[in-house]
Formats: sequence, structure tokens, C-alpha cells
Amino acid sequence: MGNNRRIRLGMVGGGRDAFIGGVHRIASRIDDHYQLVAGALSSTPEKAIASAIDLGIDEDRAYGDFLAMAKREARLKNGVEAVAIVTPNHMHYPAAREFLKRGIHVICDKPLTSSLADAKKLVKAAGKSNALFVLTHNYTGYPMVRQAREMIGNGELGEIRLVQVEYPQDWLSEKLEDTEQKQAEWRTDPARSGIGGCIGDIGTHAYNLATFTTGLELETLCADLHAFVDGRRLDDNAHVMMRFKGGAKGMLWSSQVAPGNENALRIRIYGARGGIEWAQEDPNYLWHTPAGEPKRLITRSGAGSGELAGGVSRIPPGHPEGYLEGFANIYTEAAKAILAKRNGEAVPEGLLMPDVNDGLNGVAFVSACVNSSNRGGVWTKLAI
Amino acid sequence: MGNNRRIRLGMVGGGRDAFIGGVHRIASRIDDHYQLVAGALSSTPEKAIASAIDLGIDEDRAYGDFLAMAKREARLKNGVEAVAIVTPNHMHYPAAREFLKRGIHVICDKPLTSSLADAKKLVKAAGKSNALFVLTHNYTGYPMVRQAREMIGNGELGEIRLVQVEYPQDWLSEKLEDTEQKQAEWRTDPARSGIGGCIGDIGTHAYNLATFTTGLELETLCADLHAFVDGRRLDDNAHVMMRFKGGAKGMLWSSQVAPGNENALRIRIYGARGGIEWAQEDPNYLWHTPAGEPKRLITRSGAGSGELAGGVSRIPPGHPEGYLEGFANIYTEAAKAILAKRNGEAVPEGLLMPDVNDGLNGVAFVSACVNSSNRGGVWTKLAI
Amino acid sequence: MGNNRRIRLGMVGGGRDAFIGGVHRIASRIDDHYQLVAGALSSTPEKAIASAIDLGIDEDRAYGDFLAMAKREARLKNGVEAVAIVTPNHMHYPAAREFLKRGIHVICDKPLTSSLADAKKLVKAAGKSNALFVLTHNYTGYPMVRQAREMIGNGELGEIRLVQVEYPQDWLSEKLEDTEQKQAEWRTDPARSGIGGCIGDIGTHAYNLATFTTGLELETLCADLHAFVDGRRLDDNAHVMMRFKGGAKGMLWSSQVAPGNENALRIRIYGARGGIEWAQEDPNYLWHTPAGEPKRLITRSGAGSGELAGGVSRIPPGHPEGYLEGFANIYTEAAKAILAKRNGEAVPEGLLMPDVNDGLNGVAFVSACVNSSNRGGVWTKLAI
Amino acid sequence: MGNNRRIRLGMVGGGRDAFIGGVHRIASRIDDHYQLVAGALSSTPEKAIASAIDLGIDEDRAYGDFLAMAKREARLKNGVEAVAIVTPNHMHYPAAREFLKRGIHVICDKPLTSSLADAKKLVKAAGKSNALFVLTHNYTGYPMVRQAREMIGNGELGEIRLVQVEYPQDWLSEKLEDTEQKQAEWRTDPARSGIGGCIGDIGTHAYNLATFTTGLELETLCADLHAFVDGRRLDDNAHVMMRFKGGAKGMLWSSQVAPGNENALRIRIYGARGGIEWAQEDPNYLWHTPAGEPKRLITRSGAGSGELAGGVSRIPPGHPEGYLEGFANIYTEAAKAILAKRNGEAVPEGLLMPDVNDGLNGVAFVSACVNSSNRGGVWTKLAI
Repeated sequence: MGNNRRIRLGMVGGGRDAFIGGVHRIASRIDDHYQLVAGALSSTPEKAIASAIDLGIDEDRAYGDFLAMAKREARLKNGVEAVAIVTPNHMHYPAAREFLKRGIHVICDKPLTSSLADAKKLVKAAGKSNALFVLTHNYTGYPMVRQAREMIGNGELGEIRLVQVEYPQDWLSEKLEDTEQKQAEWRTDPARSGIGGCIGDIGTHAYNLATFTTGLELETLCADLHAFVDGRRLDDNAHVMMRFKGGAKGMLWSSQVAPGNENALRIRIYGARGGIEWAQEDPNYLWHTPAGEPKRLITRSGAGSGELAGGVSRIPPGHPEGYLEGFANIYTEAAKAILAKRNGEAVPEGLLMPDVNDGLNGVAFVSACVNSSNRGGVWTKLAI
Repeated sequence: MGNNRRIRLGMVGGGRDAFIGGVHRIASRIDDHYQLVAGALSSTPEKAIASAIDLGIDEDRAYGDFLAMAKREARLKNGVEAVAIVTPNHMHYPAAREFLKRGIHVICDKPLTSSLADAKKLVKAAGKSNALFVLTHNYTGYPMVRQAREMIGNGELGEIRLVQVEYPQDWLSEKLEDTEQKQAEWRTDPARSGIGGCIGDIGTHAYNLATFTTGLELETLCADLHAFVDGRRLDDNAHVMMRFKGGAKGMLWSSQVAPGNENALRIRIYGARGGIEWAQEDPNYLWHTPAGEPKRLITRSGAGSGELAGGVSRIPPGHPEGYLEGFANIYTEAAKAILAKRNGEAVPEGLLMPDVNDGLNGVAFVSACVNSSNRGGVWTKLAI
Repeated sequence: MGNNRRIRLGMVGGGRDAFIGGVHRIASRIDDHYQLVAGALSSTPEKAIASAIDLGIDEDRAYGDFLAMAKREARLKNGVEAVAIVTPNHMHYPAAREFLKRGIHVICDKPLTSSLADAKKLVKAAGKSNALFVLTHNYTGYPMVRQAREMIGNGELGEIRLVQVEYPQDWLSEKLEDTEQKQAEWRTDPARSGIGGCIGDIGTHAYNLATFTTGLELETLCADLHAFVDGRRLDDNAHVMMRFKGGAKGMLWSSQVAPGNENALRIRIYGARGGIEWAQEDPNYLWHTPAGEPKRLITRSGAGSGELAGGVSRIPPGHPEGYLEGFANIYTEAAKAILAKRNGEAVPEGLLMPDVNDGLNGVAFVSACVNSSNRGGVWTKLAI
Repeated sequence: MGNNRRIRLGMVGGGRDAFIGGVHRIASRIDDHYQLVAGALSSTPEKAIASAIDLGIDEDRAYGDFLAMAKREARLKNGVEAVAIVTPNHMHYPAAREFLKRGIHVICDKPLTSSLADAKKLVKAAGKSNALFVLTHNYTGYPMVRQAREMIGNGELGEIRLVQVEYPQDWLSEKLEDTEQKQAEWRTDPARSGIGGCIGDIGTHAYNLATFTTGLELETLCADLHAFVDGRRLDDNAHVMMRFKGGAKGMLWSSQVAPGNENALRIRIYGARGGIEWAQEDPNYLWHTPAGEPKRLITRSGAGSGELAGGVSRIPPGHPEGYLEGFANIYTEAAKAILAKRNGEAVPEGLLMPDVNDGLNGVAFVSACVNSSNRGGVWTKLAI
């Protein structure tokens, strides 16, 4: 794809020592819709600039802070059209605000913000802007997650009764935040992560997956959050029971202290006419049981796999796509919308990348979980 | 084994149309410790007698009701030494009482009784009797469940933090109780099952498995029970959050409306030093993750499998044992105790078959779940 | 089942230190069709008698050798009706012959004999006798193996093209026969096992499974047998390519030196219209792929499971049956035939337990493999 | 990465309707080492040019044929430094020759050539050129394949005894080549594929994987190739037995007519001290059994995963990488070598991407298989 076809992308956060920034960069390249041309890659100006140079960004577009970047890029003739925000949570809102108000599209990591108040402000900011806001709940980009959504939307499971979703990890089984591991440090720090630890970091992914696939709206929840590791400042395990509008129920478990679980996000959905099961670590498979029939193993783009999955697949079934391709699907859908905007066209129908309202929903979920748990585990309404 | 070595066994319930009676009979034969010599196999006298004849029981020991059987067998020179009670739940107590008071050992299906009041009476009755009372929470008989218990007892997982247990089924996804299917009929009938539906039928198995393997004591729970099928009189799905004494937490899910699940009892236990996972449908495997090491797949009697599992295995690893062998292990442990008693010896140490107190614990669990749920899902103490 | 209903069973071999004898005894009890009343359980008379006493056999029916047993039992009013022969291979023929000629039914472990010459004599002996001869190729007793046979017989896979079968183990990866382990000792001894080591011990099971499920007849094979362990006297690994009559082809691998494999018998069969896969270590599942459709996981007695599997199942799907139940199915089919004979009735149709001709086929297979391999791995006809 | 850092890449083949070209392009982008600047993307000039425009290649570098491209690019100041050759097999040699002789690095799809004669010529051409030749046996790029190689190289399995490798597919179960499906058409056409069908297309991958992981050299083989679909001109199923130098043995099965198999490449390797197993469809796992210990599941970059795997991983364990990332690893290793050459430095040590000699080895394997099979399935030496 020629240079003029690619979207000029900037990045905030994601410098040396970061994790998710590198993922965003690969995701942006896979389908060749973006070129990274500017960055404010760290909150430490020197590190920000050095990190940009590492990545081959021109020196004059290697910024020491995001505000400088927003201001200058907005004035450049070929300034960035979109910016990826991949900082710790507490910086999502202040950074996004500056780009949105200058009409620069935002692709932001999850959770939306570190507080419900910020989330609401960000929804407003996005509402006022002509720019797009895309939230990288990347698991929604997996083809077989799309397949689940399509089947449920088509009524293949009948009325949904049960949603069992979980996201256990084990990397915080010990007090890793005391070892200068950067990821552990900020993710267990309320000032940077917000009021939720595990529930905010990965519980939101699980919750988002549940609503994305089923279309259900959560009504109330009852949560029991806990930090099992002595001295940890945020929860490292969350047990949640859920009641959805219309009568479906569910359970959500997220944990960072479950040895043997790496990123074991898994969802099981049961309706009156069938059930499905999907696991992130083996993402090219979707189990489907039509009631009264044998289980079927649908493979990505294989027999039984439908349009939604096919639309976000690149290679034949049996050749696994993974996490990066799922992430790239969010970037590619964002590109389709951005390019339509660039050309003054309507944003195409059927794009499914999460937006600012999904983000608000997630932050409200975290907030309700924390509130419920703090009051001893009482049923609490989701307040959006 | 010569006739004089085998224990003379009677059976209450388990006639034509029954399910679990046949399982008990096979379980009693596998290791050749019992011979079935008497029965009151149905609440309908004619059916009871015909069913006994079917099984080759002598006509004069084919009884029309359990009371007649208890009275006469207690007087016979070679009367039954033990009786298996395999009726619907509400008959466990009245039947067990009659045999216990006559000094006849009781092997009783779960749950212990259909009400907490009965459970407490049965505990007393067992306490007064010189006879043994064994409860067939058969899943505790699986070798790899024993392996889990041994490893946890040895501290291999460190302090236990989390217990995630579930038992989903799908057989009641529709209103099967309206089709004259006998199993569905009584299991959804409060008069015969008690106050718990799914939670009593299989939730108790899951709960028992959690306490058997970990040795934890439940302190409080918060339950959300529901009947998803219109008109069903007892819950067909149960969501429960648990807090154990000492600080461990857990979730329990049991369901009869989850299409694609046959008898998918599964437990995952995580401690500070490792995690284990076991699934009933593939019972010869135990996953073990020592913290910071790769997952290991321990097979029944294979490398890494210990004494407890070895003690209840019959054949080499890679040759699967199943549900019936696990059930037989309960019978065989009961036999060891009964034969010791017959010979005036002390009951051997190390037998792990569940007893009447385990049964009371299970009924108290069901009762607490129902109470919690009826009050909207509030945290409720386990009252024993 | 009353005593008069049970078949009076004797046993040859299977005393202290033996493995398979205990399996036969459990298998005979599971469905309550047999009672063990006599035995010549070892080739050492004192051990034979002591072993019988261990099992509760009456002293006067505890024999020091099988010939004495055959002679006396044949004269007793209530002598054995059937005998289980569970000795090392070389004794199958001499023992079976003595019982067959006295009209006593024989249930014999595999392989049929230790030599092709003996196999042919045994076929003759069985042909002359009015008694039944049943060979315990026990894997054919698994319900989902029957399911495979039924589906193939019904044409659900179309014309069969490929049969990939394997039986790897790891227990002889080192020279276990030097450690006084009895099983290793005789199974690696040509005098007791015959000309085949691994190929005879487990390769025959794999081959039998291939022919049982598909109904195909082997035409020629090309084998490469090898003993990887220094000084081992029989092969511990076998690679075989097969061409069946009608054009199907296949591969067979059996090994005793493949670390990580316990009893990993597995078969995959592909036809023009679909494929199936089955593994002994997870025997309650059968994978079925109708061409162009998603894979289906058929469970024993679950949806999609047919008559043959249902006929040899005892408990609901999701409650695993295992090796012993599969073995018991052979015993129970034998019992149906024996009881019919006892009552002067025709043997019921549809019984599928292997017979003496299946045994000859297996021994001919071993013989052809050894011949092919000895000549450097040339294509060799199966000579029966 | 700035433009001056990226390698200027051309492509031959891979236009509209092609499959593997798109894979190469994504693979080249993932780690940002290449930019595609020129192409001769089809053997039909108009289609070649239109396909290049599709991809955003400048019009003046959109060539109608590869020779024109080779000649002109070699003269341009910023002409391509490397070319990806992704045509049908028969064009690999003529295209590669033209670029090699002009000092342009070649990254070529497998198999090396369509004939052994061409393969030998290509080895010579590569030997004379200062340019690199990289063969995309992409499965060698999977991290856990590297892990297997590292463990075997370190002696963790002891002396290798057995290599069981297979690559079944099902997409040619019917005569797809009659339906104008382009992939089926050329892959079953001897003029474009060469003398091997299935054995050349995927059997070579399996063979390459066996030698890459173990370091073993094949001595002789015995092959039985067959076309099961009527009228097919090349084999669609291959059974091969192998004997390696030093005494190891193996089996290789490749098939395109095995319903239920998509790209089920799988290898199992057993040595005196342990065994490992890997499957392409679940590539982030490696099973390892140290002899006498439980099986371990090593995950990519997880506990137990070593340097080689870590060096070609991008994201944490539990976040699956897939086929495209494995493919990208070959491109990235090629980039490291190319950039070293550009800078006049020595090619770094430890790069493992396959080269022209691996390609010759693969073509010799196909040739030996075809020769063996044509002579009825006789043992045949590998002639290189």
C-alpha cells in the first residue's frame, strides 16, 4: 500500500520497558493501513525521545510529552491523523482529550480511564469531537469471538440463560511489584491503575467479552474482591455474580494468583437451544452444542464458520491466527472508519470495534464491583 | 472370595426404572466384597418383589417394604450385615434409621436427607448406633481426587487461596419432568428431593469435592439459585460465592441447563505455591502446576502419582478407570470397615469414605444456599 | 443373579504377580454372569494352590496344574462351564486344547498363541469342539469402538481409504527385563511370547482394532521391527505399512520405547465421505467429521451414539466407563453365548466378541511382520 | 523503523488469486524490517501489473515479468535488495537464478524446485552468488519448534530413537482441481508442482521439520504413494518409513484426503531419556516427558521455555502467536543476515532459517519417495 494510502499514526506511551505499545505497533502493521510517524512514548521526556528514535521515528516528531505532540501535529500539513494511547490507565483521559479536541482520531488501550468520573468526561469529549474513538478491547477482534456473536445474534442458542466467563492469570502470585518489574508496579498502583486491580486490568476484558458476544446488558452484580498477596494495594482476585436485563445470569472470575493460568480468558454461553465455549489460549476453535446434538468444533474459517469470522481472517483454517491478528482486526476496522472519514464518506456499516461507550460500560462495571465488594458483597446496580 | 468372606448386603430402592441402584450393585461387585441377598427395591411392593426376583434374590428375601426387611433380616441368622439405601432423598432418613437401630450398617446415596431437620436426626441416629454409616459421595473415590487431597495435605500447593468448582449438566434444559421420565420427575419434586433442585442433586457433590480435597471449612456463602425452565419447581441452576475459614475463597456453579455438558464436574484449586485441576469426565488425569514451573499431567498410578491414588487403583496408567471404579472404591473402603467390625477389630486407619457428618455438612450447604437465595442473594453462614 | 444363573468359571494362570488375571476376574464380575469356582493359577503348583485360596476358591478346586483341573472339572456334576486362560502366550494352545476337547468353553487372552503353527492347531481344536472359544481382544469391547464399527458399516464414512493405527507405550524404554519384573521378563522372552515382542503384545491389538472397526482384510504389509534397547531379544518397536484388499492403505506403529505414552492405542480412519478418530486413553469419545462439516465429538450413549455403543454401556454419558467395563463387555457377550448353549438355544445374533479366527488372523499378522522385517522390510502377504 | 532501515523488497508471484504471497507480505511487515517496493506478481503481465497497483507499489516498479524486474532493479540506485519468490514450484529455479546472479537476496517458498535437476542447479547458482538464499520452510520458525531443537541439541531426550511425523489435510478429498480452484489446480499438476503431489507440497514440510528438530540425516526410506481420488495426476497420500544414520527410525504420513484434518502437521520424537510432541494447529505448546516423570506442557516463553524460543517470541505466554508470526521469524532472521551484509558485517551466528541445501535435501526426499513407490515400495537411499 502506497504511503498516501496509509494512515499517519502517532503514539502516546509504549516506550522502552512498556509491553502493550509494541503490540499496538505490530497490530497496526499487519494489514498495512498505518505508518507510525510521531510519538510521545514515555512520561519521561528523554526516554520518550530516545524510544522514538529506536523506532525510526524522525527526530523532529519525537516528542517529550503528549501535549506538545498534540499541538504541533495538529498544525502540521501531514500531521498524525490518529493516535494510539497506550499509557497506564490514569493518562488515558488527559491524553485522549487533547487529541480529540484537535480532531485527531484516538485508538486507546483499555480500560477507558482510571475513574468513573474521567470516563464520563471522556464520553463527553468524544461526543463533542468529530474524531473517532476506538477502544482496544482486543479480544473482540478474534474471529471466533465474532463467530459467537453472529451465532447468538442469529438466535442459534435461543434465549440466553447463562454466561460463565473467566480470566485467570498467575503472574502476580507473588509480590512482583516489589521487584521493580514495571508492569507489576503500575498495575498494582491505585494512582495509575484506578480503583480496580485485577478487576480493572483483566476483569473488564472478561466483562466486555460477555456483553460483546451476547448483547446482554448487565443490571446488577454482587462482587467479592480480594488481595491475596500481603501488602498488595489493589485486588488480585475477583469473584462476581451477575444478573442481566431480561433474566440471564452469569458468573465472572478474574484472578492474577491462579498458578497454571497464563491468559486463560474463557467464555461459555448457554441458551435454551444450545451452548458455545471459547478460550483465548486456543482461539481458533469455537465449541458449539446444538441442544440434543453432539458437540461441534468449529474452526476459524472452517466448515460452519460464518461471515463475521471470515471477514476478519487472513489464512486458511488449521493455520492458527493469534493474539496479534485479533488485535490487528481492531486496528483494521478503525482504519476503515478513519479512511472513510478522510474521504468524506460515511463510516461503513458492520464495523464492530469497541468505542467510548463500551469503555464507559467497563469502567462502570469496575466501579460497581468495587462498591459491591467494599460494602461486604451486596447486589449493586450498574450505574452508567 | 469365598461366600463366608463376602458381606451380606441388602438394598432399599433401586428397582426397575431406577438409575443409581444399578450403579451401587456393580460397585459392590467390582472388588468382590459383597453379595446381594435381600432387597426392598421399590416403594410399590409388587414392583419391589419383582425387581428382586429379576436380580436373582431369593424370593423369601424379596421384601415389599424396607421396614419388613429391616425387622426380619435383623432376626435371621445370616441376615444382611449392611444395606444400601438408594431411594429418592426423602426416604433416606426413615430407611436408614430402621437399619441403624438394628445394628445393620448403612451405605446411603447422597444427599444425606431431603431436609436439614432430618439430617440432624440422622446424625443422632448414627451416633447412637454401633453400625457404620457411609455416604456415597462417589466422586471422592476417584484416585486422582485422592491424589489432589494428598498433595494439598502435604502442602504442595502452599496455603490454599482459591477453590473454583463446578458441576454443569444439560439434561434438564427442557421440561423433561413433564414427559414421565422418572429421574427428572422425582429430582424436580420438592416432596421427594427437598428444598434444593440442582443445588441438592449435584451442587452438593461439587461442594463435597471442594471440602474433601482441600480440608477447608466453609464459613459463609452468597447464592443465586434460579429455575430457568418455566414451571419448574426447584432450581435448575445455582451460582454460589464462598468464603472459607482462614481466608480462602471460592465459586461454585452447578447447572442442569447448560447444553454441551453431560456430567462436567470440575475442580480447580490454587494456593500460594501451585495449582491443580481435575475433571470428572477425564478422571485419570490431574493437572499440577508448581508455581513457576510448567504444568504437569499426572496420570493415575503413573509417575508423580502417590500412595492415596495408588491405593484405590486396579490397573496400570493409561488404562482408564472410570465412574464405576471410583464408586467401587467407596464400597471397598466400607467393606474394610465392616469386615473389621465383624471380626471385632478396630476399623483400619486411613479410610476416606464420606460419613454422616459429611452428609450433614452437605445438607447444611444446600439449606444455606436456598436461604441466601430466597433473601435475594445475601451472605449467609453455614449453620450445622 | 442367583447362583444357578451364574456361569461356573475356572481360570488358568493369573496367580500372584500376574497382571491380566485380575483384570479378567473383575471383568467377569461386573455384570454378574460368572462365579469363579476353580483355578490352576500358576505353573508352579504350590503357588497355584495358594493363589486360589487367596481368591476364596474352595481348596478341593484349587489345582496345581491345568490338566488336572480340566480332567476333574469335566467329571464333576457342577464342574466349570467355562475357563479363562490368562497365562503367558506359549501356554494358550496346550491349555485351551484340553478344555475344548472336554466341551468346556474357553475365554482366552491374546495373542491366540505364540506361533502360527499352534494357532492353526487351535483353530482346528476349536472347530472340532462344541465349546465356544472367545479371544479377549478387549479393546473391541469399548462402546465407542463399536460405534466406529457401526458407522463404518452403515457407510457413513463412504469407502474407506486410510487406516492409521498406533499403540505406543513407554514401559520398556529401559531394560526392565533385567530387574526381575515378571511382566517384562516373559513378554521379552521368545520362549514364552513367541516370535513377536512389541508387535505381538500390542501390535496385534492395534491390528485387531483396525480390522474390527473397518471390516477390511489385509493383503500385504511391509514391516520394520527393531529392538532399540541393547540386548533385548524381541522387537520393542514396530513400523508397518499396510495394503488392504480393495485398495485401502494404512500405517501401524506399536512401540514400548516411546516416553510419555502409557497405553496410547489410537485409531484414525478416513473414507471418501468422512473421518473418525478414537483413543483408548479417552475412550468415551469418538470424533467424527462428515466431509465438509465441523468435527463432532460423540460421547458414549450421548447424542449421535447408536445402538451398538448403547448396547454395551451401563451408565449415562459424561460418567466415564473405562478399560474394565470394555473388558467386561467381552465377558458379557461370551456369557450370552454360553447361557444360550447351556439352554440348548441358538447363540444370539449380533455378538461381536472376537473368536479363534480373529486370533489366527492376529498371529498371521505377527508372523508376516517378522518375516517382512527379517528380509529387510519387503512387502509380504498375510498367509492364513 | 525509518525507511533507510527497512530492506527494499520485491516479489515474484503472489498476485490476485494467489495464497502464499499474501502470507509472505504480512510476514515481512510484522517486525518492520522490509518494505515492498517492486513486484512481478503474476505470469500474466496485465494481472501482474494490476496486482502491484492493488498493493500500492509504484507503477514504474510494477513489472510484467520477473526478468524485466531483475534487470531493471539491479540497475536502480535504490533497487530491491531482496526478492520473495512465491510462484508455483516450477518457476522457483528460473526466477531465483536471475536474482542471485545479480546479487539480489532471494527468499523463496518451498519446495525448492519442481525437479531434482533444478534443485542441484539452484544450489550451484546460490553457491556462486554473494547473495543469500532463504527457503521459507516456515514451520521451523515456530518458537516451540525451536524449543524442541534446543532440547534435543542439549541432549535432554538422550539418543534419538524414533521420529513420528505427519501432515494430514482434507482439502483434496474430492476432485477440487476440476472446479477451477487455482490452488488445487496447480498443486495437482505435474508440470507446475513436479513429480510429487502431497509428498512435495506438505510431505516436505514434515520431513524438513523432522530433520530441523533432530539434526538427523536420512539414510533410506520406503514409500507407498497413492492418489485416492480418481483421475488425480499426483499422489494425494504418502506413507513413508524412514531409517536415519545412526540407527533412529521414523514414519512419515502426509495426506490431502483425511477428512477432519486441516493442517494437522504434528511431530513426536522419542529418545532414550524422554519424548516430545508438537502440533502445528496448537503451536504454542510443547509436550515434554522426561523418562519416568509426568508429562509437562511447556508454553511459548513460559516456564521451561528456553533461549531459542524466547528469541523468536514477541508476546507473553498465554497470548497465542500463530502461523504468521512463525513465518515472520524466517523473514526476520533473513533480515538480520541481509542487514549484516548491507553493512559489510559478518552474518550473525545462530540464525536458523532454512537455506538452499535444506531445499535440495527436501527435493531429494521427494524424489526418493517417488522412486521407492514407483518400484513397488522398496527401500531407497536418499541421493543428494
